[in-house]
Amino acid sequence: MTARPSFSSDNHFGAHPAVLAAMEAANAGPATAYGADTVTERAVARLRELFGTDAAVFFVFNGTAANVLGLQALLRPWEALICAEGAHIAVDECGAPERLAAAKLLTVEAPDGKVTPEALHQHLRRVGDQHAVQPRVLSISQTTEYGTVYTVEELRALAAVVRAHDLRFHMDGARLANAAAALGCPLTAITTEVGVDVLTFGGTKNGAVAAEAVILLDPSLASSFPFIRKQGMHLASKMRFLAAQFLALLEDDRYLHLARHANAMARRLADGIAGLPAVRPTQRVEANGVFVALPEPLRLALQQEFRFEVWDETKDEVRWMTSWATTEADVDHFVSRIRALAKT
Amino acid sequence: MTARPSFSSDNHFGAHPAVLAAMEAANAGPATAYGADTVTERAVARLRELFGTDAAVFFVFNGTAANVLGLQALLRPWEALICAEGAHIAVDECGAPERLAAAKLLTVEAPDGKVTPEALHQHLRRVGDQHAVQPRVLSISQTTEYGTVYTVEELRALAAVVRAHDLRFHMDGARLANAAAALGCPLTAITTEVGVDVLTFGGTKNGAVAAEAVILLDPSLASSFPFIRKQGMHLASKMRFLAAQFLALLEDDRYLHLARHANAMARRLADGIAGLPAVRPTQRVEANGVFVALPEPLRLALQQEFRFEVWDETKDEVRWMTSWATTEADVDHFVSRIRALAKT
Amino acid sequence: MTARPSFSSDNHFGAHPAVLAAMEAANAGPATAYGADTVTERAVARLRELFGTDAAVFFVFNGTAANVLGLQALLRPWEALICAEGAHIAVDECGAPERLAAAKLLTVEAPDGKVTPEALHQHLRRVGDQHAVQPRVLSISQTTEYGTVYTVEELRALAAVVRAHDLRFHMDGARLANAAAALGCPLTAITTEVGVDVLTFGGTKNGAVAAEAVILLDPSLASSFPFIRKQGMHLASKMRFLAAQFLALLEDDRYLHLARHANAMARRLADGIAGLPAVRPTQRVEANGVFVALPEPLRLALQQEFRFEVWDETKDEVRWMTSWATTEADVDHFVSRIRALAKT
Amino acid sequence: MTARPSFSSDNHFGAHPAVLAAMEAANAGPATAYGADTVTERAVARLRELFGTDAAVFFVFNGTAANVLGLQALLRPWEALICAEGAHIAVDECGAPERLAAAKLLTVEAPDGKVTPEALHQHLRRVGDQHAVQPRVLSISQTTEYGTVYTVEELRALAAVVRAHDLRFHMDGARLANAAAALGCPLTAITTEVGVDVLTFGGTKNGAVAAEAVILLDPSLASSFPFIRKQGMHLASKMRFLAAQFLALLEDDRYLHLARHANAMARRLADGIAGLPAVRPTQRVEANGVFVALPEPLRLALQQEFRFEVWDETKDEVRWMTSWATTEADVDHFVSRIRALAKT
Repeated sequence: MTARPSFSSDNHFGAHPAVLAAMEAANAGPATAYGADTVTERAVARLRELFGTDAAVFFVFNGTAANVLGLQALLRPWEALICAEGAHIAVDECGAPERLAAAKLLTVEAPDGKVTPEALHQHLRRVGDQHAVQPRVLSISQTTEYGTVYTVEELRALAAVVRAHDLRFHMDGARLANAAAALGCPLTAITTEVGVDVLTFGGTKNGAVAAEAVILLDPSLASSFPFIRKQGMHLASKMRFLAAQFLALLEDDRYLHLARHANAMARRLADGIAGLPAVRPTQRVEANGVFVALPEPLRLALQQEFRFEVWDETKDEVRWMTSWATTEADVDHFVSRIRALAKT
Repeated sequence: MTARPSFSSDNHFGAHPAVLAAMEAANAGPATAYGADTVTERAVARLRELFGTDAAVFFVFNGTAANVLGLQALLRPWEALICAEGAHIAVDECGAPERLAAAKLLTVEAPDGKVTPEALHQHLRRVGDQHAVQPRVLSISQTTEYGTVYTVEELRALAAVVRAHDLRFHMDGARLANAAAALGCPLTAITTEVGVDVLTFGGTKNGAVAAEAVILLDPSLASSFPFIRKQGMHLASKMRFLAAQFLALLEDDRYLHLARHANAMARRLADGIAGLPAVRPTQRVEANGVFVALPEPLRLALQQEFRFEVWDETKDEVRWMTSWATTEADVDHFVSRIRALAKT
Repeated sequence: MTARPSFSSDNHFGAHPAVLAAMEAANAGPATAYGADTVTERAVARLRELFGTDAAVFFVFNGTAANVLGLQALLRPWEALICAEGAHIAVDECGAPERLAAAKLLTVEAPDGKVTPEALHQHLRRVGDQHAVQPRVLSISQTTEYGTVYTVEELRALAAVVRAHDLRFHMDGARLANAAAALGCPLTAITTEVGVDVLTFGGTKNGAVAAEAVILLDPSLASSFPFIRKQGMHLASKMRFLAAQFLALLEDDRYLHLARHANAMARRLADGIAGLPAVRPTQRVEANGVFVALPEPLRLALQQEFRFEVWDETKDEVRWMTSWATTEADVDHFVSRIRALAKT
Repeated sequence: MTARPSFSSDNHFGAHPAVLAAMEAANAGPATAYGADTVTERAVARLRELFGTDAAVFFVFNGTAANVLGLQALLRPWEALICAEGAHIAVDECGAPERLAAAKLLTVEAPDGKVTPEALHQHLRRVGDQHAVQPRVLSISQTTEYGTVYTVEELRALAAVVRAHDLRFHMDGARLANAAAALGCPLTAITTEVGVDVLTFGGTKNGAVAAEAVILLDPSLASSFPFIRKQGMHLASKMRFLAAQFLALLEDDRYLHLARHANAMARRLADGIAGLPAVRPTQRVEANGVFVALPEPLRLALQQEFRFEVWDETKDEVRWMTSWATTEADVDHFVSRIRALAKT
């Protein structure tokens, strides 16, 4: 579709063939609309095996909705959520969280994308003061927008603050599979077991056409969510086609293999450029993103041949994303061109 | 998937094979996300051929969003829309239009699903009165929720009132293809040429997996809509897969052939049961819905073998929907069982 | 201010002198802002004597806010309230309840302004259906917009339906004092004791400058309401001046004496025109409103000399309101002019 | 009301006697409700003399509403406003601007309370990017929350950026009178003539009971505002009592004399404590606020005798506000006690 190879976004890649095949398989005869079908039933059951039998599972079309509707389930209009200043919900959702889910986002500095317990505390003042929005939800991204990954210990430390202050814990897991792959632990170890209340489990960036799951780990939220989703414009009539995408991703742990591959490609890229004086890493490479600072001429030369995003213009920082579909050859070609252009 | 043949909803049927094939075809290599890809470009161009070169086209995932976001483009918070009391937006969207697009829905009685100019006038009072919401949008469904179809003349008569009172004209075209097929006229004749400002052109009920188009016929609305869609949580990252579905439906006028077929099946069903004393038609059959009143024992007996909805319990009214996938055999079998059971 | 005597609205009359005197009395030295002052403390205590010691009391500036914020305390976005089709919140608040408190208003026909248990039932369907807003609150006006008054028995009958269907009970008591005066019963008999959850106790129409109280009879709602009121833009900084108005109205049951007087003036007016063939009563006169149908020429002639509102043009119905400030002489003069003009 | 003299807030002081007298004077006979009365007419006319004949004037009950509804007139849901990080609308309105007027608040650092052109620029990126809220309004407070005052030159510099980037200019003038008094210039010089589009002209902090004016200097906004105010729950039925408060404040430039007095008291206080080693000024004293850092023991000792607020605990910063009602004796007593306690 596009001539230049893309390291721009995991969204630039299409769907895994197994996903499309599962959609075709689901397309057999009529099925009850809105989720009362056997494909949806199976996909929900599979996800409850992964996240715990108390989990309530709801499919939506995209990540914006998964996060915003999941947050709506946790917030009343005068309550606030706390997140990293660069969180996707804070800077890339065109104000959807403010308009549709919450009164206000309180942000904390997070140079590596991670919220820390210390940073969280700065917004835990003025509790009970009617003039101020009331802090209610901690929302973190796993992996973060900087490609870093919270360890289990870091999650537990945050969870302790969350519980101590009667907050709720939300996780944007658009790339949760990449985090699980990076940590080598089961999904429950970084979600259910650390006390996450609501999470987004992303499918789209990991090979789906368009499918995300809202996982409610606090089962008391489940009875409201059908209405939140429907009024929130994300109830699919032919639900089986959303569910089928997840069945494909979950089959034989495909979601994990795909994520592991994407992570490995980022690692390969990072290793390939290690030591190049012109290319300075700005973040640790823990999942499928590589963040580096580049001289502008080198960046411009590279952008002639490859697609990728400038992340922070003021720091000459760019982002290179790898995906389930990135090949070793793609990476090696990219590395060789970086090396060649960096010399000139 | 479900044992009993379904006349319940056009949503019960899956996707046309050409739609899934088009999605596979679109799945070739990386493409820029969010609609800046060639598949989207081609689908938009095709829709502008159909609706006029001034039309702005935006794909969304489902009909709720297509209607609600389209209406948001037309309304300020203190403005109201006028629609039929049984309109989908009034009774089946869980309050999404009120919450997300408009302050208030003013409904008019519409025994056959159609708003009339006379009915419209009852809500054109109190203009300028700050205590009252201000009527601003007429929203009609074409075809209506009762399977009836506005004629071109009826649309023109409504449009005249719309213009005379400085309203805007919105059309819920979830089944617009069925209306065009029924009237045997081009899409423009019932949209662009009668002065519709914003419309939903449905794909899902006509064979897509999940794809609807918001068509802005008033080009002044186009610059705001990207933000409305994104904040409205319906910007698809892998947009090409939405666009591909429309390409499949538009190819060789497939949308029209599918709609014509669905309509023909409803006609065949209506003809098949004509004259049965136990089955009283409650609406004219003009597109792909058949509404009849049935004695409860007959209904219950039929529901043992077939799936369909009770529409209005107080009138013993049921709804039988046909679709692009309904076969003559399906209909003939249904007719024969109705006839058999109606005798007992 | 206006030459013609007004029977237009109880809002046309100014403030009772005792109200302004109480405001002056409250204006002594500095006081903590936002309600932490002794005037507010006393007014709240007085209202809890009237409505029960469990009542939580919050002052706001006007009736729109009292109703809308009170309703917000009871509703989630996908829930609906049921009210009479002519309820003030349905037709005279410019969509504020829809935008700020609730997804949707479901209205019932109410020829005398009163919701009946039978009418209520028509909206208690589709419970649990995610496509439909969920009925959650019954909101009634006491007195009604037609000047009629629910009896204790009628309130109990409604309350029984409310409890049976797990609804909440809201009362717009902008003219609650007139209802209590009409029924000759304590306020608790028509509020706390019949199971009202939230009510507006109006001050403005009964002689205040601008002061309404939201009374939360369900104490579990109290902890949220400070935030609802502040975010709802109705937290007064110099709260003591709102509270002082209520102190004046409550002193020696002044609110009741004023309401009784207003009711008596309506009675006097109704009696004065009884039997006049040209003036047909359209509602029972139970509080401070008189609704009659008049020939248009008579109405126009009267409007040359007096101010009053046309209520329903299609029925030649007008509304005559009396207030705490209406005098017997005002009424007698009005009656004599009606009688004189009705003859011509 | 409270034993300890208050330097806590200009809201702690009651109403100027002339304000209450004007309310009594307005209380003569019936008047048309909702603003169609002669008192309102006169107050509006007086404000148009002050702000320009194109100004549209709307009274509301409090400052939250004046700011939020004024901002609503300028913003669409996907647009953002830029303000100082400590702006009242950002930190002290319980999220009302986010919920009721705007998608998002983008804040800039402002150590002295003032937004600078440079700071403004940081949020003027991503224009046209559908993923990001679109910067649309600059909102500043005059005087600022830190008691500082924008000069005419500073306002012009901001206005130049506003115009260059097609933004709109909003001014929170809760203490605008204090700014005008400080600068010694007419109100137009810091509002109309520098291109402010919408402003709040505060009455409450300057001696009113509860009255603020929204001044729309862009007359194209005037036709929508009645609906914004009514739906925004701030249309007063007995409007004359709001208007009368402004008539009292405007009579013989009383608003200016009161503000000048408040400013002079702050000056007297600042001068009285100048040079005290224990009391370090943290802001310039330009209007009616004095911000200083104090050792905690001194603060606690003072708070035994006087009421005032801690502004920033992390800096030991407190705020001392003076008002129209603060006397020289109040200040001198406060100064002498500070001096005495600072020695110990």
